[in-house]
Amino acid sequence: MTHTGASKTEIQLFLAQEFPQSRAVVVEAGQGAATVQHLVGEADLRPGGTVSGPTMMALADVALYVAILGAIGIVPLTVTTSLTINFLRKPAANAHLLGVCKLIKLGQLLAVGEVSIYSEGSSDLVAHAVGTYAIPRKR
Amino acid sequence: MTHTGASKTEIQLFLAQEFPQSRAVVVEAGQGAATVQHLVGEADLRPGGTVSGPTMMALADVALYVAILGAIGIVPLTVTTSLTINFLRKPAANAHLLGVCKLIKLGQLLAVGEVSIYSEGSSDLVAHAVGTYAIPRKR
Amino acid sequence: MTHTGASKTEIQLFLAQEFPQSRAVVVEAGQGAATVQHLVGEADLRPGGTVSGPTMMALADVALYVAILGAIGIVPLTVTTSLTINFLRKPAANAHLLGVCKLIKLGQLLAVGEVSIYSEGSSDLVAHAVGTYAIPRKR
Amino acid sequence: MTHTGASKTEIQLFLAQEFPQSRAVVVEAGQGAATVQHLVGEADLRPGGTVSGPTMMALADVALYVAILGAIGIVPLTVTTSLTINFLRKPAANAHLLGVCKLIKLGQLLAVGEVSIYSEGSSDLVAHAVGTYAIPRKR
Repeated sequence: MTHTGASKTEIQLFLAQEFPQSRAVVVEAGQGAATVQHLVGEADLRPGGTVSGPTMMALADVALYVAILGAIGIVPLTVTTSLTINFLRKPAANAHLLGVCKLIKLGQLLAVGEVSIYSEGSSDLVAHAVGTYAIPRKR
Repeated sequence: MTHTGASKTEIQLFLAQEFPQSRAVVVEAGQGAATVQHLVGEADLRPGGTVSGPTMMALADVALYVAILGAIGIVPLTVTTSLTINFLRKPAANAHLLGVCKLIKLGQLLAVGEVSIYSEGSSDLVAHAVGTYAIPRKR
Repeated sequence: MTHTGASKTEIQLFLAQEFPQSRAVVVEAGQGAATVQHLVGEADLRPGGTVSGPTMMALADVALYVAILGAIGIVPLTVTTSLTINFLRKPAANAHLLGVCKLIKLGQLLAVGEVSIYSEGSSDLVAHAVGTYAIPRKR
Repeated sequence: MTHTGASKTEIQLFLAQEFPQSRAVVVEAGQGAATVQHLVGEADLRPGGTVSGPTMMALADVALYVAILGAIGIVPLTVTTSLTINFLRKPAANAHLLGVCKLIKLGQLLAVGEVSIYSEGSSDLVAHAVGTYAIPRKR
């Protein structure tokens, strides 16, 4: 592969610009993988003491994006084409979330990755996602 | 089916209580279907003039939830178990989104529905989702 | 769109050559849609009197393929990149299956379609699938 | 968990009875995981020297089933409710396939697992699937 990936710091800066409202913290990026922390806030909670499904979907999406940027560099027009998420256990309301992504394909046009989501401090999977990004042709 | 569904007004009130931060407006609910409008705000936009993927995922999720509540009544512990979304076209940044859900299965334990997402004023599909909710056993 | 689609007869001949073991009959193709009949045989049945899941997955895949060929012509290297299927009801063992596909995106590189599967003679959906094909770049 | 799983031999016998036409060989089962070999035959091949998508879907489905039976015992009415598969690389035509399943949820009613598919002798993932089975309520 001739891609030059972006560093963790470059990706964090890019996210801060492109998604100023994001509460995603890039913990690790590179080697076809990424770990992203989502700082759970009031807006993410649901009555009953849990984190909303859309919060986890957004985390899955950004973890996949970070893993791809870490592999191919900052390519802004890279966009999600599909995402499948399975919700497995109720996440804790009082813990941040971690999304751990592993790329399973990095082609010229499509990248596919899987994301495991945990409540911080627990090794139980709360959700699992698989998603695809389309990579623009000329860059 | 012996379920008694919730009315559009009941569902809107329930969403306002359970998801106070939601900007979902129940346009229609009943007959195994639902139409939900998402009022696109600043936080939903991405640079380049489009609506973020997670905004569409959240709309797909709520449209499916509204269709189920319209069919079985207000059953708060009904939770998403899985969602698959395909992003098809860039939604307009200056239009609200509509999610049109049709239930394709309403069983004792699982409900499955598909959701078509449009930018208001356009008949082009911007995203399509299929999702499953688990319905609690005793109610 | 500048694509010239293949006719129903051209597609049936192509399937007979490329998939000689297929029992798929092209009922309709064109206008971004297709209907394919699968002739249920002994090998498709499961004890308990129903049709196997993989039989339905294969039908969803071929119905999507036929809809794409009907839209872009015979492009042999067009390949499935992903498929999501939900099984909704037990199909009858003594009826053939129909897969009705509607394309929801036909791009330069990716085509996405949804497929509704029925037992012939019934209007109850037995399965529903959404799938993506990658279309080769130069043709 | 109070389930008593089935052994590899019990599962292989059960598959031989329930799916006499299957060419699935149970390599390992237990500990919430399974490895299943699919003996690639003529009917699985596609022109161009590769294995058909439906063959891989069927392998994903059976690998998940074997992992579940290894965890809960022989429960015949356990049925697939959904499956999402991503095709990542062309499998070799002259190698058998291996499906390696890991359960990511084993609930009372639903089991979810992911399956990695390889051509034997290669460590490159050719496909990846995530699927859900519904487990009958009383057993």
